[in-house]
Amino acid sequence: MIIIGEKINTSINSIKEAVQNKDENAIQELTKKQIEYGADYLDVNCGTYVNDEIEKMSWLLNTIRKVTNAPLCIDSPDNSVIKSALELIGASDVIINSITAEKDRWEKFMPMVVEYKTSVIALCMNDEGIPDSPEQRLKIAFDIADKFSAKGVSLDRIFFDPMVKPVSTDSNNGVVTLEAMKSIRKELPEAHITCGLSNISYGLPVRKLLNQAFLVSAIFAGLDTAIVNPMDKSLMSLVYASEALTGKDEYCMGYITKFREGYFDLK
Amino acid sequence: MIIIGEKINTSINSIKEAVQNKDENAIQELTKKQIEYGADYLDVNCGTYVNDEIEKMSWLLNTIRKVTNAPLCIDSPDNSVIKSALELIGASDVIINSITAEKDRWEKFMPMVVEYKTSVIALCMNDEGIPDSPEQRLKIAFDIADKFSAKGVSLDRIFFDPMVKPVSTDSNNGVVTLEAMKSIRKELPEAHITCGLSNISYGLPVRKLLNQAFLVSAIFAGLDTAIVNPMDKSLMSLVYASEALTGKDEYCMGYITKFREGYFDLK
Repeated sequence: MIIIGEKINTSINSIKEAVQNKDENAIQELTKKQIEYGADYLDVNCGTYVNDEIEKMSWLLNTIRKVTNAPLCIDSPDNSVIKSALELIGASDVIINSITAEKDRWEKFMPMVVEYKTSVIALCMNDEGIPDSPEQRLKIAFDIADKFSAKGVSLDRIFFDPMVKPVSTDSNNGVVTLEAMKSIRKELPEAHITCGLSNISYGLPVRKLLNQAFLVSAIFAGLDTAIVNPMDKSLMSLVYASEALTGKDEYCMGYITKFREGYFDLK
Repeated sequence: MIIIGEKINTSINSIKEAVQNKDENAIQELTKKQIEYGADYLDVNCGTYVNDEIEKMSWLLNTIRKVTNAPLCIDSPDNSVIKSALELIGASDVIINSITAEKDRWEKFMPMVVEYKTSVIALCMNDEGIPDSPEQRLKIAFDIADKFSAKGVSLDRIFFDPMVKPVSTDSNNGVVTLEAMKSIRKELPEAHITCGLSNISYGLPVRKLLNQAFLVSAIFAGLDTAIVNPMDKSLMSLVYASEALTGKDEYCMGYITKFREGYFDLK
């Protein structure tokens, strides 16, 4: 499982404050802690700063780079923010978060993936929105894969997100996403699959439980990349347990190692 | 989800003591508590008493029947124990736990299912043991379904258990069981599917985590009956969350109701 640490995000109040006060120490501690808890990438998102997102992103990246060269996931809806970030940190082992099949977004984001040789999260939606059926979401994944392939971007640089809608509005919404994952895993086996999971539980009580159960089921459906809080031991324990059960963890050595290293919630 | 409460089992020390001391109160409290926490059936197992299992089973059943007429799951490898239990309590809404396709066991248990019109847990194994492939386990399920059908036992009285082997001995063991569940759910949709889950984690640390993750994935694979401790809130919370995500819980009303009734682990 590829773990993308989600904590450096200015929609979280404490991070907003740290960015506002240019508190390098707070950001650096969170950076180191996420890596210590097993994050493979760190997501960096300051999209709440609509007017000076480039400046805040630059400050965040400089602050992070003083303590680690860990791979980053640059998270912004604004291509100029991504571009400026890539210029600043270089592109080695960066994921752009995220592209879609929407015409405007595709045209703005695709050239950066090609030019800087980054990886990219690709949401299975287009100008008509998020399709209702797994088949249509797979079709968008195929389209994106084809168009990237024509530009020399291989499947292992694409992290497909089949998109989740809340199960509270349609009880079939979870199943549709899982079916889309299974199809993408089967048809495009070299691609990664990730998912912004928490939308599944929107409008329901004890969202943590629904998010946990959905993450477990997604791992069995082919998810190999999770954007999560790596310090959430109760969630991460279930992630490692699920991996051990999917047949990909030979002799459960990954599970046993994580246990020995103290990553588990033993409550 | 059909919940079979697993706690009245003399392999648990406190239950063994209660049976030994004829402590009616202890058994009755546990009976009431399991029902209060949502058990639909109560499993009753005193298989550790090899020499006087009939007598102990009778005492247990009389003790339970003084406080509830709840459906029971009579759990013994010995057909004479089952027979004596059915004579004592009558057969309305009883599950026999369990039959297999082994010749000897089939011939001893099948007639009781037919005569007393009970339901039955049917393990997908035969005289060659537990098959390695999902296809062979499905084949055993088909065989059992056919033979029962010829005797007038309908599918909705059969709870298939596709059998679990530890993932520590072969990392594919979990996936094989899940695939068998999916096939049974697809090919014999009116049958129930249950599973003795805990074998999955044999030989590994923090078995609770593996059991939880496997139960969640099994629910997505078609499991509709769980033999569990209904008072284990952390497990049961995940069960209700999983059900809400499988598309079978319209508007998530089952989930919301369980939440309101206080069945959730809110830690």
